[in-house]
Amino acid sequence: MRILGIDPGLQVTGFGVIDVDGQRLSYVASGTIKTAEAPRGDLPQRIRIIFEGVREVVATYQPDTATVEIVFVNVNPQSTLLLGQARGAALAALVSSSSTLSVCEYTALQMKKAIVGHGHATKDQVQAMVQRLLQLPVLPGKDAADALGLAITHAHAGSSFAALAQSGTLNRKAHAQYRGGRSY
Amino acid sequence: MRILGIDPGLQVTGFGVIDVDGQRLSYVASGTIKTAEAPRGDLPQRIRIIFEGVREVVATYQPDTATVEIVFVNVNPQSTLLLGQARGAALAALVSSSSTLSVCEYTALQMKKAIVGHGHATKDQVQAMVQRLLQLPVLPGKDAADALGLAITHAHAGSSFAALAQSGTLNRKAHAQYRGGRSY
Repeated sequence: MRILGIDPGLQVTGFGVIDVDGQRLSYVASGTIKTAEAPRGDLPQRIRIIFEGVREVVATYQPDTATVEIVFVNVNPQSTLLLGQARGAALAALVSSSSTLSVCEYTALQMKKAIVGHGHATKDQVQAMVQRLLQLPVLPGKDAADALGLAITHAHAGSSFAALAQSGTLNRKAHAQYRGGRSY
Repeated sequence: MRILGIDPGLQVTGFGVIDVDGQRLSYVASGTIKTAEAPRGDLPQRIRIIFEGVREVVATYQPDTATVEIVFVNVNPQSTLLLGQARGAALAALVSSSSTLSVCEYTALQMKKAIVGHGHATKDQVQAMVQRLLQLPVLPGKDAADALGLAITHAHAGSSFAALAQSGTLNRKAHAQYRGGRSY
């Protein structure tokens, strides 16, 4: 299964693509879509760059599933509005790309918990863990690392769901005994 | 020239299409794109409905120009974020529909000033004036009226720009004398 992660932003949208084969994760690609070439006030033009960039990533890498970070309200309401529009354009690009591409959403907290082990992880910690998990020769950029982190989060969630689906009552009981014990 | 107005919203997106021939405005179509059929929590699905709805309107009516209402931050930051995403999807649909479709933005204040004559106009007043300006047999719905109002605003702005382009220094001086006198 191929998973695309998208970390949306009006200035920089990060993307990361991984392949999942059982427990094995492998890096396919990552990068950023930047809207700096559009004039600062030209929102439609920036939306176009995000939309077309995400479409191009989907067309190039043909993922089975896309995951998008759930963005939160910012201290600055105007920034919240701009971020919302960037995310809307990225989501529109994904849902319109292919009728077979499923789209899932995770919060940054869920991603950090899945990658680093706790929700208060710094960007540096996410970068370092993504490098280790995907055995990358170099540290990925911050935006790309977040996007790869989202893809890995979905891979883990997927295998957890699969394990749960296979497990009976006994396993679920066993699992309940460890609840709160470890901080994966 | 055919102008499409879009009043974006996560629940209801209004659209209105008019034709402009010199000073003459004529109604072509109006309506709403509603996302109520999608589950409330399924944002990607709602984004898809808005995106595909706007694309369908563009494909059906083939406008030369699209105008989109500039949305503002809401009292509730979460609503601001949702509205931003709806607007991002609508903008993405417009800018990706056709390379020849220009996209302009107006605030609700600019629209109300252009349609009713002052920025504090109510929704009812916008509906009534849109009905008169387009000689409609019935009152348009609130969301469609706002969208038609945006299209008319652009038609007026277009003819003002054309008049300005034709006017010399004399006319601009004459205009300056009336500055602040009337509240168009």
